[in-house]
Amino acid sequence: MEVVETIEAVREQVTAARRKGRKIGLVPTMGAFHRGHISLIERAVKDCDFVVVSIFVNPTQFGPGEDFEKYPRSFDADLEICRETGVDLVFAPGTEQMYQTENLTWVNVEKLTDTLCGQFRPQHFRGVTTVCAKLFNIVQPDIAFFGQKDAQQAIVIKRMVADLNMPLKIIVCPTVREPDGLALSSRNQYLTEQQRKDATLIYKSLQECEKMIRAGITDTQKIVTQMRSILNQAPSIKIEYVGIVDAETLQHLDHITGKILAAVAVRIGPARLIDNILVDVSER
Amino acid sequence: MEVVETIEAVREQVTAARRKGRKIGLVPTMGAFHRGHISLIERAVKDCDFVVVSIFVNPTQFGPGEDFEKYPRSFDADLEICRETGVDLVFAPGTEQMYQTENLTWVNVEKLTDTLCGQFRPQHFRGVTTVCAKLFNIVQPDIAFFGQKDAQQAIVIKRMVADLNMPLKIIVCPTVREPDGLALSSRNQYLTEQQRKDATLIYKSLQECEKMIRAGITDTQKIVTQMRSILNQAPSIKIEYVGIVDAETLQHLDHITGKILAAVAVRIGPARLIDNILVDVSER
Repeated sequence: MEVVETIEAVREQVTAARRKGRKIGLVPTMGAFHRGHISLIERAVKDCDFVVVSIFVNPTQFGPGEDFEKYPRSFDADLEICRETGVDLVFAPGTEQMYQTENLTWVNVEKLTDTLCGQFRPQHFRGVTTVCAKLFNIVQPDIAFFGQKDAQQAIVIKRMVADLNMPLKIIVCPTVREPDGLALSSRNQYLTEQQRKDATLIYKSLQECEKMIRAGITDTQKIVTQMRSILNQAPSIKIEYVGIVDAETLQHLDHITGKILAAVAVRIGPARLIDNILVDVSER
Repeated sequence: MEVVETIEAVREQVTAARRKGRKIGLVPTMGAFHRGHISLIERAVKDCDFVVVSIFVNPTQFGPGEDFEKYPRSFDADLEICRETGVDLVFAPGTEQMYQTENLTWVNVEKLTDTLCGQFRPQHFRGVTTVCAKLFNIVQPDIAFFGQKDAQQAIVIKRMVADLNMPLKIIVCPTVREPDGLALSSRNQYLTEQQRKDATLIYKSLQECEKMIRAGITDTQKIVTQMRSILNQAPSIKIEYVGIVDAETLQHLDHITGKILAAVAVRIGPARLIDNILVDVSER
């Protein structure tokens, strides 16, 4: 496994791999690996012949006052995981490598970024789509792997790839959870013991949502109210949003129909945590 | 030479050519070829092994009230030129091929698009950069060829390629002119005989600009005033802008220094015509 810091070195390695007819996989990450990242990397290793993992805490997707500075870094442990899982190339650029001059060019996906997290992190998705466009152009993978935990991100990236005819496929892998249901996140480590316990209510609220839908309840307002009351059981939880939206357009639904995305964002202490489930009632 | 209408067919042809180790060139056009286009194609044929010419009148770069509907089309003659110059593949998609679903994703180059033509055509460059990003992703050329006549477009495209790390090189070819100096443009055919005569004043004003700079005049206001008075000799000419800007940042200059771009946009009858010159005084 090679670890490189420059775009030039990535291109060199990937070009050599492609000449040998290798299928190139990319797992774009911000490091601080947990089992969620590992599942993405394992899937990439399974589906591709040459796997590139990028580790880059991208400043342009953090807003003012967000946790860019203190976002967890565990570079050596991350590299060890890459080695163990069979990664071929780690791309770990510095900010000055990724943004060599003042960045004037932004990729914007409209509408899909106005809802859910987009309402609370106004420039976030612009930063995500732009850095992903850059990484896709640098690595030129055949497939890139993203996690379902960041549901809106996955939908936005897929739309960017489709709209701009980017020559790669996006694979979205299932959310990995703790035994008590909490979705793995690099930000879980910000939590105290009590907050960590409270955080299990996030997935409990989503399970309740699914249960209500399966029971035939179609009034989303009723479901959201119930979900909010579960989250409000812990005073440490400040709800940012509880949304039930169309899983493709991300538009708010009044009534459960088709493929729906139920998504939650909360603040617990210093952590902003998100989670979601997909429920398909289209064949009901 | 093959002529194809679908993205799939382009990818197939280009992939086959790349497998044979061919260097891929792309000349993105809106058709209605004149000697300016031919010079781009000839340069591509000279520099590359497999030349793709795209012919697509892109609706997203025309504003409301602009000439999208009546923009000149001469498809059969364009194809004949492609055949004669040694083009390998013509990509002539319909609008529904290029914009298959509602397009939500836009590539924006900030700052560089606020000045000159950007002030008068607010969504124009967003349409240009987005369609070029799409074409680059579809064709995946090693080199794409643009004309210096659209100076701001060339600078914006180059910046997009640099900022997003797009894996291709941009070559900008010199403006081709009529014997009397008028820059070739598909829109010149909108002009009456008298308007066509008046249009020669555009290049005359730019020549006067260069002459004044060479004579050591550094006050751009003085130069612009002189250029405007030349253009105003013809009552048919309505000046949109006369700009003297830094050739890299496109920011307005009070004094001549470094590499400058002098650019003019006018309306003559139904035509909006642009032209420019580059003057380098950095070694003076």
